[in-house]
Amino acid sequence: QMFSERFGKGSRTVDLELEAQIDVLRETKNKYETILRLATALTSHFQSMVQTQQALGDTFTELSQKSPELQDEFGYNAETQKLLCRNGEALLSAIGFFVSGIDTLINKTMEDTLMTIKLYENTRLEFDAYRSDLEEQSLNPRDGAAMVRIEMAQQDYQIHRDKYERLRSDVTIKLKFLEENKVKVMQKQLLLFHNAISAYFAGNQEQLEQTLIQFNVKLKPPGADKPSWLEEQ
Amino acid sequence: QMFSERFGKGSRTVDLELEAQIDVLRETKNKYETILRLATALTSHFQSMVQTQQALGDTFTELSQKSPELQDEFGYNAETQKLLCRNGEALLSAIGFFVSGIDTLINKTMEDTLMTIKLYENTRLEFDAYRSDLEEQSLNPRDGAAMVRIEMAQQDYQIHRDKYERLRSDVTIKLKFLEENKVKVMQKQLLLFHNAISAYFAGNQEQLEQTLIQFNVKLKPPGADKPSWLEEQ
Repeated sequence: QMFSERFGKGSRTVDLELEAQIDVLRETKNKYETILRLATALTSHFQSMVQTQQALGDTFTELSQKSPELQDEFGYNAETQKLLCRNGEALLSAIGFFVSGIDTLINKTMEDTLMTIKLYENTRLEFDAYRSDLEEQSLNPRDGAAMVRIEMAQQDYQIHRDKYERLRSDVTIKLKFLEENKVKVMQKQLLLFHNAISAYFAGNQEQLEQTLIQFNVKLKPPGADKPSWLEEQ
Repeated sequence: QMFSERFGKGSRTVDLELEAQIDVLRETKNKYETILRLATALTSHFQSMVQTQQALGDTFTELSQKSPELQDEFGYNAETQKLLCRNGEALLSAIGFFVSGIDTLINKTMEDTLMTIKLYENTRLEFDAYRSDLEEQSLNPRDGAAMVRIEMAQQDYQIHRDKYERLRSDVTIKLKFLEENKVKVMQKQLLLFHNAISAYFAGNQEQLEQTLIQFNVKLKPPGADKPSWLEEQ
């Protein structure tokens, strides 16, 4: 059947609305993968920046103690870098939570629906194969043997039509739930991402901490290689 | 002379105060090289972060247009990332100016004084060699030939003592000017660095721009590979 379709022979059962929805899902998944990739890169660059700020803070502190003539200048720079490090760790936890949330949405939730879609597509292919078989049988002269074959083809057709309908219904339901879930997850994650980034880059430590509490983001212990939010999500 | 000193023979002319100052200079140069290295790393991490924010902003904008159900959420995230990029470019210019200033201080100003110090150290070695030669000659019995040799050794001693004194004076003067220059440059650069970083991380675009104007920092055109401030400083 697949080959018949490839070479323009055979007909294809098409649910235009459903296929459009599936195309949209695949496109959305691609776009969200771009966000995931960029947010992961952001985490990595930001992490490097915070580490450098930590080292700069330490060097400024040392020079503030060793340079009486520039004590103030090194001193206030040391303070600023250290404050940025503390807030930086908080922002890293927030971005980590965002990355983890998007990762789950793409690689668990969307992936689960896409697996059902693959099953549905295979079932559609099988169903169309039995359907064309039945159509071919029906064109033959109707002697006794032919009637038996038509009867059997009819049964196969019915079984695979039911299976196809069931999976089409499964896909429709999963797509509906996925859409609702996607909107809910993204509303939450995009709000968290925005509020955490805004608070951090406005130097608003209190608001940043409030955002973490509001979204129940645990502060990653500094230096933890395996971020704890990966298991929590 | 160098070997005599190494093996504990021969005496060494020592200016304790000057040598202490030279040690401090070498230590300061090391510390400032650490700052230069860290500030350069900060530029690089920050640059990567701004580029990622640019790409995130573009992706959020696209998704805001394509996702009616999440239009607002993607929209305000896009706005935030774009604003951060604009301010990020300004901060990059400021950090670049700081890096360039520290680089000039270390690799031009301090290096120039260290070259004079090397000359001074060589001259000190030569002077001590002629000094011990004269001391040895003076121990010999004073016949006519010896008197001539002492006379010549005396002249050599005088010439190299003058040269040594002159270079010691050069070093003293250069160290004094370097100290003044260092304090002036670092006061300016550390204030710029602090004000630019504080303004950026407080989300204060106006203050960041004011800081650039105050310190006469030119905004690096985005994407310019060779930062223009390298030539200007």
